[in-house]
Amino acid sequence: MLDATTQQVFSQDLPDQQPFCRIQKIEVTPVAFADPPLLNSVGVHEPYALRAIIVVHTDSGHYGLGETYGDEVHVNRLRRAAEELINADPFNLNVISRLVSASLRQDDGQGGHGTGGMVTTTSLDDRVLSAFNVACLDIQGKILGLPVSTLLGGAVREHVDFSGYLFYKWAAHPGQEPDKWGPAEDPAGIVAQARIMVNDYGFRALKLKGGVFPPDQEAAAIEALHKEFPDIPLRLDPNGVWSVPTAINVGHRLESSLEYLEDPCLSIADNAAVRAEISLPIATNMCVVSFADLPPAMDAKAIDIVLSDHHFWGGLSRSKLLSGFAETFGLRLSMHSNSHLGISFAAMIHLAAATENIDYACDTHWPWKRQEDDVIVPGVLSIQEGRVKVPTAPGLGIELDPQALERMHQQYLDSGLRQRNDTGYMQSIDPSYELKSPRW
Amino acid sequence: MLDATTQQVFSQDLPDQQPFCRIQKIEVTPVAFADPPLLNSVGVHEPYALRAIIVVHTDSGHYGLGETYGDEVHVNRLRRAAEELINADPFNLNVISRLVSASLRQDDGQGGHGTGGMVTTTSLDDRVLSAFNVACLDIQGKILGLPVSTLLGGAVREHVDFSGYLFYKWAAHPGQEPDKWGPAEDPAGIVAQARIMVNDYGFRALKLKGGVFPPDQEAAAIEALHKEFPDIPLRLDPNGVWSVPTAINVGHRLESSLEYLEDPCLSIADNAAVRAEISLPIATNMCVVSFADLPPAMDAKAIDIVLSDHHFWGGLSRSKLLSGFAETFGLRLSMHSNSHLGISFAAMIHLAAATENIDYACDTHWPWKRQEDDVIVPGVLSIQEGRVKVPTAPGLGIELDPQALERMHQQYLDSGLRQRNDTGYMQSIDPSYELKSPRW
Repeated sequence: MLDATTQQVFSQDLPDQQPFCRIQKIEVTPVAFADPPLLNSVGVHEPYALRAIIVVHTDSGHYGLGETYGDEVHVNRLRRAAEELINADPFNLNVISRLVSASLRQDDGQGGHGTGGMVTTTSLDDRVLSAFNVACLDIQGKILGLPVSTLLGGAVREHVDFSGYLFYKWAAHPGQEPDKWGPAEDPAGIVAQARIMVNDYGFRALKLKGGVFPPDQEAAAIEALHKEFPDIPLRLDPNGVWSVPTAINVGHRLESSLEYLEDPCLSIADNAAVRAEISLPIATNMCVVSFADLPPAMDAKAIDIVLSDHHFWGGLSRSKLLSGFAETFGLRLSMHSNSHLGISFAAMIHLAAATENIDYACDTHWPWKRQEDDVIVPGVLSIQEGRVKVPTAPGLGIELDPQALERMHQQYLDSGLRQRNDTGYMQSIDPSYELKSPRW
Repeated sequence: MLDATTQQVFSQDLPDQQPFCRIQKIEVTPVAFADPPLLNSVGVHEPYALRAIIVVHTDSGHYGLGETYGDEVHVNRLRRAAEELINADPFNLNVISRLVSASLRQDDGQGGHGTGGMVTTTSLDDRVLSAFNVACLDIQGKILGLPVSTLLGGAVREHVDFSGYLFYKWAAHPGQEPDKWGPAEDPAGIVAQARIMVNDYGFRALKLKGGVFPPDQEAAAIEALHKEFPDIPLRLDPNGVWSVPTAINVGHRLESSLEYLEDPCLSIADNAAVRAEISLPIATNMCVVSFADLPPAMDAKAIDIVLSDHHFWGGLSRSKLLSGFAETFGLRLSMHSNSHLGISFAAMIHLAAATENIDYACDTHWPWKRQEDDVIVPGVLSIQEGRVKVPTAPGLGIELDPQALERMHQQYLDSGLRQRNDTGYMQSIDPSYELKSPRW
């Protein structure tokens, strides 16, 4: 399976050490899971969210798991990268990274962002590498008898705190029965949703996905949340659809009720202009999404907090490099979430457990997914008192459920969806809907 | 052995996972080894160089090795840190780091730099942490059956290239017999020394330690080397004793003969002023020696290359963070060396092997040490064709020789030296010698 490109990478004076095992087979399986009609700045979540599941098999009989975006363009890239990785040593993460990059050398870099158009400037190489890095660490941990958190430098916390992720939403997708959450299209609806989140999961931090309604209404929702939960830190994330003056106005208004403001504007320059005028810390997972974004963001003094995300920062190993960068520049770290299943959740938890400066409660979409929708054996990961106990079993500490993977893949086939498209779905319901940035 | 401080660190919600082993005992042993009279900007090497050897024993019967500076103040800090580490899990490097920092909380931070006054702004915590980080990685590797390079992300090269480190020197220490190298106090002497280096070790890069003679003479030495070895990249390191105008003049003169210029001046600002005027890349191991130095150096556009050094960058794990930073900012990496023994050499080799962007030939003082002066079983590390084969045995791939350690410790006791002091030694020989910066 070693093609010319791979041979070239391997011929660069690599060690002759006998590896524990080699990668024998990699399965890349797109899956779909039911998703409620969550509203955001570019439209509304479709009835199914897409993910790709990576299962890396070794000639020693072990397997490692990775999870990433399910857009078809991305899945095709994963499959090309997977071919390059056959025969590679899963203990040599640097060579894994070289091989993934080698598989992308002829790639035009277009599409496959997996974020419905919201984050489109992540690094191609890091985005494709991520799930393979996670799967190789899972294999290493299983073979060595060590949890992934130890491979990342050692857990510094037994539990990882998460924030309750609030969304404006409809009661149901058109033509479907209402879900258990009910509608949330105004401050009262958001407060009602927050009560369920706090009661059912014990969250001790709350984040509202904004950018959906006029900023005054979203500010009122934050104020209502602050009144209802005065001791709970709050965040608001309009996904960059505010103008600088709007962001400054809303920022001033919410200075006493927010913990931080996420991506008020889209660009580094605009967020820097906002940050210069308001006293709230500014967080981002939109204007700083790759290592290349860090120097200009530091130069512009645009942000205080990076919402790390191993799915676009090159996996867990390179996310540790981000943590070193943040320490060096006095940036703080929180964690971003896309709709995800249990493999990503486990990876996020190991990373946060082993990273001193990921010390804000992290985001997760976990409560929005049906419990039965997953590809792992249930029971290991659960949110209690707003936090998750870090798995201590070897590797990621989770197991693949092959029947569940098959079922979720069938769901993908049946869904007909091949790319996340929140805007298109919204326009199919409301033909007058327009993308606009800034919208307010 | 868990004192109040340690208990406090451990009480912060740490995992209840059963570790493979715990640290049972740590021996910190100062040693001395014979050193030739090598000249530099602050004086001359004393007849013995000092190091501290760390041997970390686990309750599983394994041991790990670390090596660092031998200044008495540093040795005392190592011993205090060692007490904190008893019972700690050598697989949890983050907690090891926390505990070392805890041991330094009451420390006034004065002295113990180990560099004879040449580098005095390194991070106290990182300087003390380094050898423990190396020793714990050595233990991990031995228990897991993996070389340290794999624990650092995987070797990307089978050999690590080193540069031949040329020094102005006397024929002998006063009262001693001349050594095999002979004197080198002018360009001809340096070229003669370089011939030995290249013949005996096959170096394919050469560095001259300058800052000793007037810059014109040192520039002439570089030009003579360039004439003698036109295909060998050359570096010159005056250790920051030039003024900005001098550095610009010499920099212009050597633009066609140097690969890079190291620390022409002492401060970030002065090196930035030089860099703006000359076309040579500027490297440093003096003005950027800790994570705190990186942001101002980037701001000032002061440097092109960081000479990494795990002894002051917090060990091998944190040196990887430096490599991520360098990648992010387009800095390149080479490696700095102090007089060292085999443990440090092995650690340097594993780090360079596992770090893509340490791609310049690294510095080493290795040829200046007598072969019989070491604390490890000989045979694993040797420079051939200017490079060293990366050890593939578990851990650092080297073994302690307890008798040799005892002998080297006795040499330390007999030497009477307790702190590196190149200036004091020079003044004992030449009472008129004065420290001056800039000197030219």
